[in-house]
Amino acid sequence: MKKGLIEPWGVPLAKVDFGVPIERLEIVASVDVDASKVGRTLYEIAERYNLEPEPELAEVTVNPGLRLASTPSFIRTAALDDRLPLGDAIARFEELLDDAKPDVVFDVTTTARSEPLHDWEEAEERALEGKLPHPQVYALLTLRRSGVAHVNMQPAHVACSPALVEQARLNGSLVLGDDGATGATPLTVDLVEHLAERNRRVLSIAQFNIGGNADFLSLTEPDRNLAKEETKSGFLEEVLGYEPPHFIRPTGYLEPLGDKKFVAMHVQWVSFGGFIDELIVNMRINDSPALAGYMVDLARLAYAALRAGVYGTVSEINSFYMKRPGPLGLKRKSKILAYQDLIRFTHKLAAARILQQPLLLEEVGRE
Amino acid sequence: MKKGLIEPWGVPLAKVDFGVPIERLEIVASVDVDASKVGRTLYEIAERYNLEPEPELAEVTVNPGLRLASTPSFIRTAALDDRLPLGDAIARFEELLDDAKPDVVFDVTTTARSEPLHDWEEAEERALEGKLPHPQVYALLTLRRSGVAHVNMQPAHVACSPALVEQARLNGSLVLGDDGATGATPLTVDLVEHLAERNRRVLSIAQFNIGGNADFLSLTEPDRNLAKEETKSGFLEEVLGYEPPHFIRPTGYLEPLGDKKFVAMHVQWVSFGGFIDELIVNMRINDSPALAGYMVDLARLAYAALRAGVYGTVSEINSFYMKRPGPLGLKRKSKILAYQDLIRFTHKLAAARILQQPLLLEEVGRE
Amino acid sequence: MKKGLIEPWGVPLAKVDFGVPIERLEIVASVDVDASKVGRTLYEIAERYNLEPEPELAEVTVNPGLRLASTPSFIRTAALDDRLPLGDAIARFEELLDDAKPDVVFDVTTTARSEPLHDWEEAEERALEGKLPHPQVYALLTLRRSGVAHVNMQPAHVACSPALVEQARLNGSLVLGDDGATGATPLTVDLVEHLAERNRRVLSIAQFNIGGNADFLSLTEPDRNLAKEETKSGFLEEVLGYEPPHFIRPTGYLEPLGDKKFVAMHVQWVSFGGFIDELIVNMRINDSPALAGYMVDLARLAYAALRAGVYGTVSEINSFYMKRPGPLGLKRKSKILAYQDLIRFTHKLAAARILQQPLLLEEVGRE
Amino acid sequence: MKKGLIEPWGVPLAKVDFGVPIERLEIVASVDVDASKVGRTLYEIAERYNLEPEPELAEVTVNPGLRLASTPSFIRTAALDDRLPLGDAIARFEELLDDAKPDVVFDVTTTARSEPLHDWEEAEERALEGKLPHPQVYALLTLRRSGVAHVNMQPAHVACSPALVEQARLNGSLVLGDDGATGATPLTVDLVEHLAERNRRVLSIAQFNIGGNADFLSLTEPDRNLAKEETKSGFLEEVLGYEPPHFIRPTGYLEPLGDKKFVAMHVQWVSFGGFIDELIVNMRINDSPALAGYMVDLARLAYAALRAGVYGTVSEINSFYMKRPGPLGLKRKSKILAYQDLIRFTHKLAAARILQQPLLLEEVGRE
Repeated sequence: MKKGLIEPWGVPLAKVDFGVPIERLEIVASVDVDASKVGRTLYEIAERYNLEPEPELAEVTVNPGLRLASTPSFIRTAALDDRLPLGDAIARFEELLDDAKPDVVFDVTTTARSEPLHDWEEAEERALEGKLPHPQVYALLTLRRSGVAHVNMQPAHVACSPALVEQARLNGSLVLGDDGATGATPLTVDLVEHLAERNRRVLSIAQFNIGGNADFLSLTEPDRNLAKEETKSGFLEEVLGYEPPHFIRPTGYLEPLGDKKFVAMHVQWVSFGGFIDELIVNMRINDSPALAGYMVDLARLAYAALRAGVYGTVSEINSFYMKRPGPLGLKRKSKILAYQDLIRFTHKLAAARILQQPLLLEEVGRE
Repeated sequence: MKKGLIEPWGVPLAKVDFGVPIERLEIVASVDVDASKVGRTLYEIAERYNLEPEPELAEVTVNPGLRLASTPSFIRTAALDDRLPLGDAIARFEELLDDAKPDVVFDVTTTARSEPLHDWEEAEERALEGKLPHPQVYALLTLRRSGVAHVNMQPAHVACSPALVEQARLNGSLVLGDDGATGATPLTVDLVEHLAERNRRVLSIAQFNIGGNADFLSLTEPDRNLAKEETKSGFLEEVLGYEPPHFIRPTGYLEPLGDKKFVAMHVQWVSFGGFIDELIVNMRINDSPALAGYMVDLARLAYAALRAGVYGTVSEINSFYMKRPGPLGLKRKSKILAYQDLIRFTHKLAAARILQQPLLLEEVGRE
Repeated sequence: MKKGLIEPWGVPLAKVDFGVPIERLEIVASVDVDASKVGRTLYEIAERYNLEPEPELAEVTVNPGLRLASTPSFIRTAALDDRLPLGDAIARFEELLDDAKPDVVFDVTTTARSEPLHDWEEAEERALEGKLPHPQVYALLTLRRSGVAHVNMQPAHVACSPALVEQARLNGSLVLGDDGATGATPLTVDLVEHLAERNRRVLSIAQFNIGGNADFLSLTEPDRNLAKEETKSGFLEEVLGYEPPHFIRPTGYLEPLGDKKFVAMHVQWVSFGGFIDELIVNMRINDSPALAGYMVDLARLAYAALRAGVYGTVSEINSFYMKRPGPLGLKRKSKILAYQDLIRFTHKLAAARILQQPLLLEEVGRE
Repeated sequence: MKKGLIEPWGVPLAKVDFGVPIERLEIVASVDVDASKVGRTLYEIAERYNLEPEPELAEVTVNPGLRLASTPSFIRTAALDDRLPLGDAIARFEELLDDAKPDVVFDVTTTARSEPLHDWEEAEERALEGKLPHPQVYALLTLRRSGVAHVNMQPAHVACSPALVEQARLNGSLVLGDDGATGATPLTVDLVEHLAERNRRVLSIAQFNIGGNADFLSLTEPDRNLAKEETKSGFLEEVLGYEPPHFIRPTGYLEPLGDKKFVAMHVQWVSFGGFIDELIVNMRINDSPALAGYMVDLARLAYAALRAGVYGTVSEINSFYMKRPGPLGLKRKSKILAYQDLIRFTHKLAAARILQQPLLLEEVGRE
C-alpha cells in the first residue's frame, strides 16, 4: 500500500489529507508472547498466513512481551515473565521501548477482563504485583513516556481508565481506545440509529458471532466473553433512549471459519399502528484486515494529534473507531454521526498544521 | 393515536415539538378510483382490512378520482373520467378541492411512469389532453391553489418537476416528494454510507423485493417497474462517489405475502488488503403502515412550513422522507445525515413560530 | 380439530389411516409442577395463552407432579414432593395413574440431564432415593404398568435406556422417545443428507437457536444445554460418515421472541473442483405447536401399536419423530428416509388390524 | 481427479462401484459456438478461467458447432452455420461425430425455449429448416447413431421429447435429461418434501437467483427465463399434492457475482393450530462446478447403462440429476427419494455386469 501497489480500501480516511500520508508509516518493533512467533521476523510470519510480504518486514523481529495472568492458557508462551521475575521482565520491556522509540504503540492482544483504573500510583503498584491484566500494564509502561500515543484495540479499560488518560495528558502523550469497532457492532449501532430516527420501537435484538481465529477461541472463556459482551451492547440505551431486551455476544469457536467470522442478527420492532417488522442480517467478515485498515488511520491520526499538541485522549477519534470509546462515561453515538465529528476534527488538525499553532484542548474531546 | 390510545411508534418526529401536534391532524376528504372503495366510508374500508377504526372515519366518504391512462388495468375503476369527458371530470375534481379546503393533499396512488415537467402552461395543456399520468395531474390541480401543500408519496416526477415547484413558490404553496422512503431503500442508503465511511469498495449490490399488495401487482408492468427502479438506486453514485454494479428493483408479486413484503439483499465489498466481505439482509416489512407513519409527520411539517412562509419545496424534508427528493437535481445523501438536517429545520420552524416571523427562503432548501 | 373446525396441519400422518382417527383422542389427565398451573383447569390455562379452548378442557384439572432435583430453579413449584416425603409423593402419583388409566402418557417437561439406565431394579432404587431426574422417574412409574405407552418428548434417556425398553417389553407396554424432533434439527438432518448424497464435503456447521419460552430459559443452565446439544448433533457422523466441525446448540434466552424461536444456521462445503459453497438458513418457528402436532400422531401410533401387540419400543416411530431415537445405539438416519419407514410401518399396523393378528416383533424395530 | 490428485467431492456416486471408475473417463472432442473459444484447446481455455489444467487437455481443440436461431445474441459466434448453409453445416457436424466416436455426448449450452417433439420425421424436417432450437438439433443428430448416449443438461425438451426417447430406444441408444438439477431447485424439492411429510401447509414460496455468468446473462431474455421457470417449479404440485402460490425464477444478471450465484428463498407455512412459521435460505453456490460433478457420474452411468442393454431413457437417473426428468409426464419426486431409486438402479447395473446379461427394459424407468 505504501508503494501504491494496492488500493487503500478499508482505510477510512485514506483520501483525507491531514498531513500524515500513509507512506510515512513505518513499523519499528513488534512484540508477542506466542512462542511460535517470538524470534521470527514479520516476514516469516506473514508468509505463514499465505500473504506476500514486502522485504522490509524481514528487518523486524518479534520481541517477547509480558504474559502476566491474563494471557489465555491455550497459547504456548515465550514471554519475558516466563523466565524472569516480573520486575525484571518489565524493566526489559521498557528497554525495548527506549530502543525502538515508537511514536505510536498498538495493543492488539487478546481480550482481557479489567476494571477502570482511577489512580496512577496504585495502578503502578498493582502492575508490579502482577495484579493487572496485560493491556493495562502495557498502557502504563507506554504512558510513563512523553510524546507517545498508546492505542488500545481490545476491550480492557485503557482509554476508559481515568488514571491513564490523566497521566497521558500530564506527560504530553495520548491514549486512544477501547476495542476497535469493526465487525457487526458498528453496523448494529448504525442500524439502531436508523430505527431510532424513525421512532420504531425495538422489541429485541439477537446477535451471534462465530469464528475460527484465536480471538474467538479465547472468548470461549466466560470471563473474556463477558468483557466483550459489555463493549458490544453498551450503545443501545444511549442511541435509543431505552435498553431493549438483547442477546449480543461472541457465541462460539468453529475452526474452519478461520479469520472470516459468521454473524447472524435478528431485530424486531413495532412500526406505525402496532405492526411488527423483522430484520435479519447475516455476514461473513474478515476480522483482522478490517482492524488493520483502522490501524493505518489511527497511527496517522495519533501522530498528527500529538504534533498538534493534543494530549490525553480524543473522543472524536475514539467515537468512530472504538466500541467503547474513551474517556470513561463518554456518551456513545451512532458511527455515521461519529464520522461527521471525526471529519471536523481532521479539518482542525489540518488547520493547526497550516497555522503552525497547537489545537486548544478545549476544542477537542468535549461532549 | 390522536386519543392517546396507541403509541406513536413509526412517526419519526412524534417526540419533536415544532408547533403542530399529532392531535391537530384531521382527514377532511378522500379520493380513490377503485370501484370497491368509491362511495364507501373510510370506516367501512378500514373494517375490511381487519382494523378497528375510530367512529369519526364514518364521516368521510371516498370520492371518485381521475383514472387517466396511467391507472393499472387490473383495477376496476369508478372514476370521474369513466363517465365524464376529461375536462368535466377535472372540473368536478376541482370542486371537490374547493369544498374540502385541505391544507395538505397526499398522493398515495400507484406508481406511474413520468418525465419531469419544465413548463407550467404546457403541462396544463397536456393534462387536459389526457397526456400526463395521474400523479402529475393531481399535483397540477392542487398547486393551482394558494396556501396548500401537495405531498407526492410515489415515484412520478412531482417535487422533481421544476414547473410544479416554481408554481408552488409563486402561489404561496408547497410541493413535497417524490416517493416515500420506507422499506429497504432508506436502509440501503444508510448501509452504503456506513461502507463508504470505511472506504470499503462495494463490488455489487443485489436487492429483491416481493409483496402481495396492489403496489407490487402494478409493478409487474415493466414501465412501472423501471420508474420504481430509478428512484431505488439513484443514490449510489452520490453516496459512494462511484456507481457499483447493482440489481435493485421490485421483483415480483406473491399474493400470500400481503402487505408485509419480503426483502433480500446481498452486498459484497473489498476490505483492507483485498479481502472480500459479504453482507446479506432479509426483511419482512409492513409496507403501508410505515408510509402512514411518515404521512403523520409530513402533514405536520407541511402545515408548519406553510405557516412559516416557506413556499416551493423543502429539501430538508424531502431528503429524509423521500426516495428521490425534490427539487430536481438535489444531491441525495444518507438518511442518517438527512435526519440531522431535518432536525435543524424543525428548530428553525419552532424559532420562526416563537419570533412570529417568516423563515427566509434563503435559509431552506439550499444544498 | 376433533370437531373438524380447523385443518389438521402440522399433524404428519393426519391423512394416513391406520385405524386410530384423530377424533378418538381424549385428554384424561394432566400433571405439572408449576404453581401457577396446578389446580387450574386446562381451559383456564389455555385462555391465559390467548387461545380459544373448547369447553371440554374445563373438565381436566392439573394435578401436582414430582419436582425431584431436576426441575429448574426458576419455576415456583407446587409439587407432590414439595410437601411429602419422596416415597409418599411417588405413591400419590401412582394413584393418579390408577385413576386416570391412560393409554398413552406424554412427558413434555423441561430438559434434564441423564445417563442411560441399564438395570431396572437399580433404577427403581435410585428413583426412590431421589437420584434420578424427573423424566426417568415418570417413565419408570408408567412402565410398571401393563398395556400403556410412555412417550418421552425431551432429551433425557428414556427410550434410550435399555432397562426401560426391556421392562416395557416384558410388561406388554411401550416406550417411545427421546426428544421430539421439531425445529431446526430435523431440517438440518435432511439438509445434511442432501449434501451427503451429492458427496459434498461439509467443512463446518454453525447453528444458533434463541427463544423466549421456559425451555430456552432452562437451557441457560449449562448442564441442560449440554444434554440438548448432544441430541441435536449426534446424527452428523451417521449421515455423513464423518463428523465435521460444528457448533450446534441452543444459544440463549430472549423473552420478546416468545414461543417463536429464531434459528440461524451456516453451512459450508467443498463442491466439485475444490470450490466452496455456502448456505445460510434463518427461521422463525413456533416451538410448542409443532410438538403438539407430533403428539397427535404419537398418541394414535402408540395406541395402534399396543393394540397390534407391539411392545418395547418402535424404532420406525422414534426415527422420524425424535432427535435421539431409541433404542440406545439405533443408527440415526435422515428424516425423509425415516418417513418412508414410518409409512411402511403404518401399512403393517393397518394390515395387522384387518387380519386381526399381532405384528410379530421381528417385523419391527430392527435396523 | 483421474490421477487421484484431488478428492472427487461433488461427484455424487464417487464411492459407488458399478463398473465404470472415474479414471476411465476421457474427453474426445469439444464443440462451442463462442468465437473466443473455437479453435483453442481446452488447455488454453481452462487457463483463462485461472484453473490449472492437465496437459492432456492441450490435445482437445474446440470445434465449431451450430448456432441456429436460438443462440443468445450477445455471443459473438464462430459457428458452422455462420458461413455454411444449414444443410452443409449439419453434415459437417455429423462428420465430427463420426470422427470422434463419443460414447456419451453432453449438451451444456445455454437455455433455449422449446416444445416437446412427438414425431421423429417431422422433427428431422424442421431441424433442416432451422426451426428447432439448437439443443433439440444436437440431440437429433446424436440419436441418429446407435450405441451412444445424449445427455441434455439444459431446459429444452430432449429427454422430455417422446420422439427422441423412442428413436433412442429403436437405435440402441440413450437420451438423458432435462436440465441438470444443481443449485437451489433440488434443495427446494427436498425442503418441500420435508414440509409435506409433516403435513405443513405451504402458503407461499419466493425464490430469487442472481449470477454473473453467461447463463444468467442469457436468462435476461424473457423467453429463456420462462423456459427456466418451468423446470424450476414443476415439482410443487407433485410433491405437495397442491400448488402453492410461488415466484421461483432466475431474477437477474450481476456481473461481479461471477459463476458463484446468490440465491434467496422465503417459505412460509401453517403449522399445527394455525401458527405460521417462516424459513429463509440464502446461498452462494458455484454453478458450473456442481454441474461438472454431476457430469462425471452421468458419463459413467450412461456408459454402464448402454453396456447393460438399457436403451431409450432411464427415469432413475433423470429423477435425481435433472430438474425436469424425462420421459415426458414422469412424476417428479424429492431428490432424497430419487437418490434411493438411483442407488437401487446402480445395484442392478452391477448385477447385470456380473451375470453378463442385459437388464430387462421392464425393470427400469417404470414409475
